[in-house]
Amino acid sequence: MTILSFFTRASRAFNGYPASSKLLLLCTLSLSGGGVVAYSEAQVDASKTSVQVNEKDCKKKRVVVLGTGWAGISFLKDLDVSAYDVQVVSPRNYFAFTPLLPSVTCGTVEARSIVEPVRNIIKKRNGEIQFWEAECMKIDAANKKLFCRYTVENNLVGNDDFSLEYDYLVIAVGAQVNTFNTPGVLENCFFLKEVEDAQKIRRSVIDCFEKAVLPGLSEEERRINLHFVIVGGGPTGVEFAAELHDFVQEDLINLYPSVKDLVKITVIQSGDHILNMFDERISSFAEQKFRRDGIEVQTGSRVISVSDKEITMKLKAKGEICSVPHGLVVWSTGVETRPFVKDFMGQIGQANRRVLATDEWLRVKGCEDVYALGDCATINQRKVMSKHLRDVTDLMKDSEGNYIDKVDIEGFKLALCQADSQVKNLPATAQVAAQQGAYLSKCFNRKYKWKDNPEGPRRFRGSGRHQFHPFQYKHLGQFAPLGGEQAAAELPGDWVSMGRSTQWLWYSVYASKQVSWRTRVLVVSDWTRRFIFGRDSSRI
Amino acid sequence: MTILSFFTRASRAFNGYPASSKLLLLCTLSLSGGGVVAYSEAQVDASKTSVQVNEKDCKKKRVVVLGTGWAGISFLKDLDVSAYDVQVVSPRNYFAFTPLLPSVTCGTVEARSIVEPVRNIIKKRNGEIQFWEAECMKIDAANKKLFCRYTVENNLVGNDDFSLEYDYLVIAVGAQVNTFNTPGVLENCFFLKEVEDAQKIRRSVIDCFEKAVLPGLSEEERRINLHFVIVGGGPTGVEFAAELHDFVQEDLINLYPSVKDLVKITVIQSGDHILNMFDERISSFAEQKFRRDGIEVQTGSRVISVSDKEITMKLKAKGEICSVPHGLVVWSTGVETRPFVKDFMGQIGQANRRVLATDEWLRVKGCEDVYALGDCATINQRKVMSKHLRDVTDLMKDSEGNYIDKVDIEGFKLALCQADSQVKNLPATAQVAAQQGAYLSKCFNRKYKWKDNPEGPRRFRGSGRHQFHPFQYKHLGQFAPLGGEQAAAELPGDWVSMGRSTQWLWYSVYASKQVSWRTRVLVVSDWTRRFIFGRDSSRI
Repeated sequence: MTILSFFTRASRAFNGYPASSKLLLLCTLSLSGGGVVAYSEAQVDASKTSVQVNEKDCKKKRVVVLGTGWAGISFLKDLDVSAYDVQVVSPRNYFAFTPLLPSVTCGTVEARSIVEPVRNIIKKRNGEIQFWEAECMKIDAANKKLFCRYTVENNLVGNDDFSLEYDYLVIAVGAQVNTFNTPGVLENCFFLKEVEDAQKIRRSVIDCFEKAVLPGLSEEERRINLHFVIVGGGPTGVEFAAELHDFVQEDLINLYPSVKDLVKITVIQSGDHILNMFDERISSFAEQKFRRDGIEVQTGSRVISVSDKEITMKLKAKGEICSVPHGLVVWSTGVETRPFVKDFMGQIGQANRRVLATDEWLRVKGCEDVYALGDCATINQRKVMSKHLRDVTDLMKDSEGNYIDKVDIEGFKLALCQADSQVKNLPATAQVAAQQGAYLSKCFNRKYKWKDNPEGPRRFRGSGRHQFHPFQYKHLGQFAPLGGEQAAAELPGDWVSMGRSTQWLWYSVYASKQVSWRTRVLVVSDWTRRFIFGRDSSRI
Repeated sequence: MTILSFFTRASRAFNGYPASSKLLLLCTLSLSGGGVVAYSEAQVDASKTSVQVNEKDCKKKRVVVLGTGWAGISFLKDLDVSAYDVQVVSPRNYFAFTPLLPSVTCGTVEARSIVEPVRNIIKKRNGEIQFWEAECMKIDAANKKLFCRYTVENNLVGNDDFSLEYDYLVIAVGAQVNTFNTPGVLENCFFLKEVEDAQKIRRSVIDCFEKAVLPGLSEEERRINLHFVIVGGGPTGVEFAAELHDFVQEDLINLYPSVKDLVKITVIQSGDHILNMFDERISSFAEQKFRRDGIEVQTGSRVISVSDKEITMKLKAKGEICSVPHGLVVWSTGVETRPFVKDFMGQIGQANRRVLATDEWLRVKGCEDVYALGDCATINQRKVMSKHLRDVTDLMKDSEGNYIDKVDIEGFKLALCQADSQVKNLPATAQVAAQQGAYLSKCFNRKYKWKDNPEGPRRFRGSGRHQFHPFQYKHLGQFAPLGGEQAAAELPGDWVSMGRSTQWLWYSVYASKQVSWRTRVLVVSDWTRRFIFGRDSSRI
């Protein structure tokens, strides 16, 4: 059949010839009207450095990668697998494009559209990367061994536990939700960390509406069920609040007209402003937009407990404690280290730290051949400061930027402190994780080549040079979508952009940053579908 | 922005002007290469009969509809809501296009693509249909009252129970899975009745593969985990087996190459042939295709128990009992009446029947103003037979079709038996349910108009005419997709069609039968996506 053969041909073209597939997809994109910029994959391909390994005959070093998030996948994407025997362990057999999670909560984008199976990604690498869907339970750093477990509950036969040995270990397991030990949070709140979390929220929002319209409820009860509380005014919380507001206003009030005036969205923030990690202009733009939209922003409030019916908080200014009934609470306040990483930190003398510390080369401190990147690690301050010391001349300027000839001890100390304060911990974002993954894969790809030709800076202690340049984070900007086709963005060079055009920049960037053409097409078609048909409110 | 305004315009056009939306969508369809026939919605609109109710001032009669499946939705779609006060009760706030459920199990089609929110459907009716997401727990036929309960588990406030009064009750709740009291089935089997069932199967198939490739399993253990058993060789079971085979061969063996030779699919059928409700040619075509594909068909076997590790069955021919280990069992053997319908049957003197009995006008026997349609009801044989008596001349023919002048008592009895045997119970299919829903809505729409002008046949007992023509099922054919882009179809007039072209007929019919343009576009784009990118194997 003609139509069948069209599909067969198209399918072959897509699998075989990336160029033609891109052409066809760009047609689709332009048809859908998005006109998005889609270039990332090509760039990634170009930057890949192929290594001519001379030691092909000798046994390959075993690299075990823990985690398939931004850091892990970006490491794997560029790693030269001809030089290493690579194994990947993760409880999720897919990579999730986490910045779109808030969109999944309301069905603007489907969950399936932001995930890509790990095996699809590693298959394209033409190497022998092995993947195990399991959780790492314990790292035995002394014996270079890992203990893993298949943790899905079912009746399948065979041992769930197995161990792996490694020559190099790359820890990229991310972090888990931090409840700050607030009572009732784990039991009564929703989170926004995993794809399943977003799916749960989506179902629960619909539940709130379906319950609220049932016959026999008082208006007060309807109002309580439709009170959506978001704890945490960071980018995730704010984006979810904005998405929820859009979902309610654009879709749900048409389907549940009887309760349209009873819906309330509250954002609770302990600081004085939401989005306080952004530029002040963005923060106040967001607050103004939320005020116009009727989203209540309650700043200066610290949540002290959450029950199944009420959320209790302390108003910092007055010292008062108050409780409000809720229909649904989303907890989005921050992250903490996973238990098995904590245990590992105990083994290597980092027991009293909060997060796993690495040096500037992402090597875990106090441990050989272990690397850590992404949300589960921080680059140790001292080292970072020492990096800045290389440009000592920067310290020799006074506050107006004029050079000074002499520095006394006090002045030197002051200058050091200034440098230190400028070097904050890197934020726990996808951008940092992805850059670290790409950096580390480059180091791994050059490990043999540059063993005897170090390219890094002169050693601070000891003689000679470091093998590689240290990791340097390049901040490319950050988005904060605010709903109603408006977004704010902090761009490099202290640029700030806000409004509708920024939302379209957001669409373009997020479409281009997708990990595969499949997810790119799906995400763009989801956006298009939303424009045309609205969001789906089926409870599945 | 130009692009934004394009979307706004497109969106408005879609919501406001169906004609233009259809044009645009047909462009999309033709681009996607499907070239599907899409006409159903237009037909439905045309067939709607508007009722000029004279009694507008008097209180509207209350109609309560239970269920939002094929029967319920097809009843609601055509019902003239200006004449009735309509309330709908269903635990699912969406309509699911159930014939595509087997496709959802393997990700050929996404779950979201086959569901349409009930509120979307009833919103389009421009009337005051109210929907409650709740389960009917009990019918009090004597007092014309229903007791309902909101059954989703969560912490929302307000009473979960409420009652409704009705003047007319339409029972369209479908049926539930029938385990035939086989031990272990409920605990250890998967089903294919609800959208959630299909989603569970999809995750579990991936679980089987992920577990099977883990290090440390013996080959025997891997083989067991990859043994997929389907109990029931009806259309659903066979289609699932075919979908699973395609999923494995087209997608999974590329991602899990180490276990590609260990996968086994077995269909267990108690009868002598699979698809035995179809024409013999289709049945044997399916068996031959499955044999070529390596799908084992084990006929003449009755399952007697299912444990978490093994499935035990009795081979009818030899009387032997044998057990085989499994990774996943899908139970797809038949349906039975829901408990609250059973209870209702007790109230109205149908306690010793298996299924709720109605007359030819779909009125529940032994009860006033209650109608039942779809899988939860059967039209009582006696009445159906009496329908055939209208064409008495048919009975006056001999076996060669020649008219005979006289019939003796024995001959008359024989003729009656023949007529009876021709009238089997209607199958529990979407087609029957949808036709019954449409029929009943027509009756409801004409209820006032034809009160004094009955259009039905002369009464068998008593004098005068029946108000309406009795329901007559028009069989439009049935499909059995067999995988590998092949399908079989039984068409009206004893036509049988098999092969690739039939699969394309299947695509066309299923696309055209979608309940909304949204789901139609989604289903067609899912098919296209599968052709281009394959199915997603992420475990979400």
